[in-house]
Amino acid sequence: MNRVHNFGAGPAQLPIEVLQSAAQEFLDYKGLGLSILELGHRSSEFEEVLASAKERLIRLLNIPEDYDILFLQGGATLLFAGIPLNLLHYKAGYLISGNFSNKAYLEATKYGNAEILANSKDQDFREVPSLDSCPQDLDYVHICQNNTIYGTQYHRLPTTGDVPLIADVSSCFLSAPMDISKYGAIYAGVQKNAGPAGLSITVIKKSLVKKAQDICPTYLDFGLQLKQNSMLNTPNTWAIYLTNKVFEWIENAGGLAQMEMRNREKSQLLYDFLDESQLFSARAKPSSRSIANVVFSTGSEELDAEVIAEAKKENIVGIQGHRLIGGMRASCYNAVPKSSVLALRDLLYQFEKNKR
Amino acid sequence: MNRVHNFGAGPAQLPIEVLQSAAQEFLDYKGLGLSILELGHRSSEFEEVLASAKERLIRLLNIPEDYDILFLQGGATLLFAGIPLNLLHYKAGYLISGNFSNKAYLEATKYGNAEILANSKDQDFREVPSLDSCPQDLDYVHICQNNTIYGTQYHRLPTTGDVPLIADVSSCFLSAPMDISKYGAIYAGVQKNAGPAGLSITVIKKSLVKKAQDICPTYLDFGLQLKQNSMLNTPNTWAIYLTNKVFEWIENAGGLAQMEMRNREKSQLLYDFLDESQLFSARAKPSSRSIANVVFSTGSEELDAEVIAEAKKENIVGIQGHRLIGGMRASCYNAVPKSSVLALRDLLYQFEKNKR
Repeated sequence: MNRVHNFGAGPAQLPIEVLQSAAQEFLDYKGLGLSILELGHRSSEFEEVLASAKERLIRLLNIPEDYDILFLQGGATLLFAGIPLNLLHYKAGYLISGNFSNKAYLEATKYGNAEILANSKDQDFREVPSLDSCPQDLDYVHICQNNTIYGTQYHRLPTTGDVPLIADVSSCFLSAPMDISKYGAIYAGVQKNAGPAGLSITVIKKSLVKKAQDICPTYLDFGLQLKQNSMLNTPNTWAIYLTNKVFEWIENAGGLAQMEMRNREKSQLLYDFLDESQLFSARAKPSSRSIANVVFSTGSEELDAEVIAEAKKENIVGIQGHRLIGGMRASCYNAVPKSSVLALRDLLYQFEKNKR
Repeated sequence: MNRVHNFGAGPAQLPIEVLQSAAQEFLDYKGLGLSILELGHRSSEFEEVLASAKERLIRLLNIPEDYDILFLQGGATLLFAGIPLNLLHYKAGYLISGNFSNKAYLEATKYGNAEILANSKDQDFREVPSLDSCPQDLDYVHICQNNTIYGTQYHRLPTTGDVPLIADVSSCFLSAPMDISKYGAIYAGVQKNAGPAGLSITVIKKSLVKKAQDICPTYLDFGLQLKQNSMLNTPNTWAIYLTNKVFEWIENAGGLAQMEMRNREKSQLLYDFLDESQLFSARAKPSSRSIANVVFSTGSEELDAEVIAEAKKENIVGIQGHRLIGGMRASCYNAVPKSSVLALRDLLYQFEKNKR
């Protein structure tokens, strides 16, 4: 099998060990005579999978006891509504650091009083906005902690005082250790660093979960879903199963500290090259650079397209930038090996040399 | 590989040919050097999968041109909210034939004026309620066409005049041909007859899709999702891929007419036995019996448990009834072979004989 160098932003590369393990038991799960896909969600065997996934995530993120975990469908986009429908009672503050944080803000305005506390649009989203002072009469402050499209990331969390911080961590989930106690909730679509498409994970402080708004769809009612252990209806059993295998892979590889070291090394390899290059440049300001998504370009659409085509010839795929801003993007998620990053860097180096 | 006889109500058995085909290309999809799980949803290769799924479904159900198809997450439960949030402007009517139709009704009352037109609760849901006359000032009439828990099914649709009929067809989706033009919309979680957990399919008359309610989560806005071809955000790529394989399997097996013939034969084998049995009896009245879910019991909890335990010894699994009503249930979905039904019938026959 010839694996490509896959820098896709999501659905993204998965650890080959996880895929091989799933392939091996695909037709017969644990000798039960059926596929995991055919296993009822209320069977003891599936309940074991769900319990194992929860336990592993608690270990990986060192989740305090006063937090709980939700496994829902619909991605971060559905949670853009779920967060205010459950947590917005008086007023919420949003920090706008790119496309998805803006979507989250707009969604919140449907359900109550939401205001923008800071915005880095004027900086073309080349950095994340800082928050100098935070009103204390808010239900929560919302950020998108890593901006997949613009390649930026919060390296220091905004100071919100006693106001709970809610973070969409879709593209940095499990890429490094996090201090969960600093958040009211984190949530992520798992299709970047932790699993296949079709599953979101929310880690939320239990005391924040009160009565949802009356117009909240039952499916999105956090209190009900927590009471039902995310099984109010049929959950995405396959995605939970596979994500649990990714959790296991991370544990076996040394946990989140190890992931962070690897991810920093990978992204730094690219940033160092980009900073020295005469042709390519990184989009984000150094202080806000993402360790997950390295966004860069030549400044010329034609040249960018040429790079992408050259890369494809070398089995380097998924480096086209998001359609909103063009250019290129190398997503260096957990499962992307250093060897892929080196292959990309060598290609960029060679491309630049040939253009001189 | 020793496949069990799997009568689970969902996530349910899948055709072994589909599983084998997915297993074969699991680590390398079409020689791309990556798994289908790692393929970006905006790649041309995934767009082909989605287009193929749509085309196949249009062929299978003979879907008229003025209808369109949505592939969403969150199951039928999320659509219980999605239907009124998109279609309820003045008033809607609900027929209550069991647990899920009642949940759908309760959800609609959150979003507007919803009234119960008929209810078979007094008949203990042993039959579906009939509708003698239908008010014509409704946005739609909603039914659950097949009731998984109670083992009942509409064999003749209620007459609604000019009012669009909306049907939750989760457990009878693709089990037989349907005349789509008789409906305003049908929707189904695919984890019973058509795919894995984590995907719902909605077939809806385009002219019904107008402006959603202001409080509708963007994810659930049918108009927006249709405009984006169900890709407003990352869809459940894996489930769409696998469901497309099930569509292909149905086509190769002779289409929905063939499915109906097989399903009728399978369920009839069980109903005939149950009607002659002195020990077992079918729960549903003959006129409302489901061809998908055969619900039955001995009338004794202890004996039912004994049957379920005996069955397990013979590799017959998934026959415990829903926790709401107990007893037993044999879901004879498309992928359940006649040989499994014969094995179950023989077991029941033998059990009864031994008890005499």
